[in-house]
Amino acid sequence: MAERVVVIGGGFGGLNAVRALDGADAEVTVVDRTNHHLFQPLLYQVATGILPPGLIAPALRSVINNQRNARALLAEVRELDLAAKVVRAAGPDGRPVELSYDTLVVAAGASHSYFGKDQFAEFAPGMKTIEDARYLRDGILSKFEMAEIATDPQERAEWLTFVVIGAGPTGVELVGQIAELAHVVLPRDYRTVDTHEARIILLEGAPAVLPPFAPKLQAYTQRKLEKEGVEVRLNTLAVDMDHESITVKGPDGLETIRARTRIWAAGVSASPLARMLAGQVGVEVDRAGRIPVNPDCSLPGHPEVFAVGDMVALNGLPGVAQPAMQEGKYVGKLIRSRITGEKAPDPFKYFDKGSMATIGYRSAVADAFGVKFTGFIGYVMWAFIHVMYLIGWGNRLGTIYTWARALWFGHNRAHRVITFETAQDEISEGRMVSGRPSPILPATEVSQTETTTSG
Amino acid sequence: MAERVVVIGGGFGGLNAVRALDGADAEVTVVDRTNHHLFQPLLYQVATGILPPGLIAPALRSVINNQRNARALLAEVRELDLAAKVVRAAGPDGRPVELSYDTLVVAAGASHSYFGKDQFAEFAPGMKTIEDARYLRDGILSKFEMAEIATDPQERAEWLTFVVIGAGPTGVELVGQIAELAHVVLPRDYRTVDTHEARIILLEGAPAVLPPFAPKLQAYTQRKLEKEGVEVRLNTLAVDMDHESITVKGPDGLETIRARTRIWAAGVSASPLARMLAGQVGVEVDRAGRIPVNPDCSLPGHPEVFAVGDMVALNGLPGVAQPAMQEGKYVGKLIRSRITGEKAPDPFKYFDKGSMATIGYRSAVADAFGVKFTGFIGYVMWAFIHVMYLIGWGNRLGTIYTWARALWFGHNRAHRVITFETAQDEISEGRMVSGRPSPILPATEVSQTETTTSG
Repeated sequence: MAERVVVIGGGFGGLNAVRALDGADAEVTVVDRTNHHLFQPLLYQVATGILPPGLIAPALRSVINNQRNARALLAEVRELDLAAKVVRAAGPDGRPVELSYDTLVVAAGASHSYFGKDQFAEFAPGMKTIEDARYLRDGILSKFEMAEIATDPQERAEWLTFVVIGAGPTGVELVGQIAELAHVVLPRDYRTVDTHEARIILLEGAPAVLPPFAPKLQAYTQRKLEKEGVEVRLNTLAVDMDHESITVKGPDGLETIRARTRIWAAGVSASPLARMLAGQVGVEVDRAGRIPVNPDCSLPGHPEVFAVGDMVALNGLPGVAQPAMQEGKYVGKLIRSRITGEKAPDPFKYFDKGSMATIGYRSAVADAFGVKFTGFIGYVMWAFIHVMYLIGWGNRLGTIYTWARALWFGHNRAHRVITFETAQDEISEGRMVSGRPSPILPATEVSQTETTTSG
Repeated sequence: MAERVVVIGGGFGGLNAVRALDGADAEVTVVDRTNHHLFQPLLYQVATGILPPGLIAPALRSVINNQRNARALLAEVRELDLAAKVVRAAGPDGRPVELSYDTLVVAAGASHSYFGKDQFAEFAPGMKTIEDARYLRDGILSKFEMAEIATDPQERAEWLTFVVIGAGPTGVELVGQIAELAHVVLPRDYRTVDTHEARIILLEGAPAVLPPFAPKLQAYTQRKLEKEGVEVRLNTLAVDMDHESITVKGPDGLETIRARTRIWAAGVSASPLARMLAGQVGVEVDRAGRIPVNPDCSLPGHPEVFAVGDMVALNGLPGVAQPAMQEGKYVGKLIRSRITGEKAPDPFKYFDKGSMATIGYRSAVADAFGVKFTGFIGYVMWAFIHVMYLIGWGNRLGTIYTWARALWFGHNRAHRVITFETAQDEISEGRMVSGRPSPILPATEVSQTETTTSG
């Protein structure tokens, strides 16, 4: 009988595990709470109106439709029973969906962490899902609309103040694009308000932007952001916020900044499934809620259960795309070798392909194989690599076309549809009406600089 | 002093009025409750995952950003005061926005009409706005996901039954695309369910589909739809419905069909602003809520106030794109001639460019200048004309690329992102959580066949 493999999560880790099992004598079921594989490194481009969601979020069942031994299910995992070898999930209508497995791969990713200050979630949304990105986009665009109808200059300035908390790749990429929107794209669209006046502030608790990058690239990034009109505030933490302001603590003490938009890009916390697994195998999760795994990504005492990606703590690997992809692929190969009885692959070894981030207008920093790239050359590298990793030629060509149109020729943003109701929701107190916050996890204290996201 | 022109609505009528005033000594303000101009004839393609919203809904302020005498405002009009020459609107946060005018153009369009059965709105959403289209798309896609996890064959059949009420162009185009989704695109994406089994039913109260078209094209359309697996039921009305079924009355009497999806494409009713205007100038709206206007689109006794498009009754013109565009352009020219003191243009005359509709896979019917086209030739004509009328080369090329990818090469649908929460909302009772129904207008009794939409 074919090996029943259940994979939880269709992100980088899960999808690579599924693909590595193509053709194997297995029945692979990938369960995800969305219908799509999300290419998170470009999520900030959805949040700023460059790309439509579809190009970076292809339907999972469409991605694997040529793999006859794999199927996808839209359901939310509620319980993992390692003793009974059963995954208990629920369909969108709450109906129980039970999946028995011979082998289990858990690749459930991570969500934002507010470092124990969960009350911030209401005031500073984060960006981990496609819905998060759409919500940020609607919010950013609505603020410019409000500025255009505001008559009081002080109020107008508040609508045009954007604060991003956390200067990891996600935060840097977001402020870069918000600055491009305000200073390049939107000025000719507005008559009453001059969007050049927008204030875009980047807060970072560490003494440099892009904390894990080389000092040279950090300095370049900060200089470039400042040239594009971003206020970079280092050694500065968010200590309080409400719907109209944020209070920060920096080298000069406390300051309250009036700002109608605050975005959280400061930290992540592993999926609650990590803690659930840890409880069953008798290990402790780390401060970011991640479960420690064996060198082959299996769980202690459970060779048939694997965990990969952002939810695991393995050799200090960062929570970005590459480790998840490589771990997923490795685990898929390992399961395949067990099915065929062939020799198991060599122990998992991470191959560091480097890291990169865009900085606004046609510029990026990249650090690969010890070589450092900046500016337009970095940007071309960044664009090439990100397009290459997108799934399917249709999405690749569509993305190139959309970039050409948005960034090179028109300086336009085609994907910025909002309505009166959207704007109402976005500017109302909290996001109770149509937006939905990502699930907030039990707080685990993590330092602000440690866990930047994006790959 | 420049003539203050206020235009209400940035659709086909309003936008053409604004554009015709380019360069005139005027201050033109276009007020809309969304931030975009909507190309409604392609809305069904958003509802079925072919096009992303951005390509057919460019930001209004971006569309007019080269016209220096025009500006756009996101606000909702609450009151028209013709005596004081003031438009009273509200911003998304409820703040009053007052606009004084010398000349007013009202182009506020139409919404669905349920022919007095407003309780149907909860069970059979319509499609007039981009939000409506996204809601329909999320709903259609979620039903296939539910069918995949359903275990009871009877229940599965209900998830896979789609009923569209009204066989005007919108209804025909929707069933054509739902059939293509179920019978061409999705089968290879699903493992448990065979989406070929989907039942797609088109209800029409009249004795033929596409009631305003020539009998030859009607017959062709019906034959083609049936060949693609659509059940066409003529002389059949929806008499009752709930969340799981619809009761219809046809030639064979009453029948209740178990169906989890019902879509309303049967009729429209003018914007409530038509009734508001009518009250102030002392005329009566017609059964579809439309206001009668003078031959030059001005209101009786108010030469400085014009109404155009779907909300007006003028010479029996249908509520589609062409009359709105031509009326808007005419009114813009007329206002311009008044400003310059030049001779007024000749009285408005409608130039009928014909009508067309797609019928599923690479096929369309078109009736232009007395010549009738069907099948692939009709489809090529349809595609060419619709691309031509889109705004901007960026959207035109983007649409051609997306069509090539979706319809010709991959038979895929790139824009079908849903999440667990979306699915929960779509299958729950009503759309109370994140979806929003289009505003339902006071019921005005209109026969089911008379007022089909789309251009």
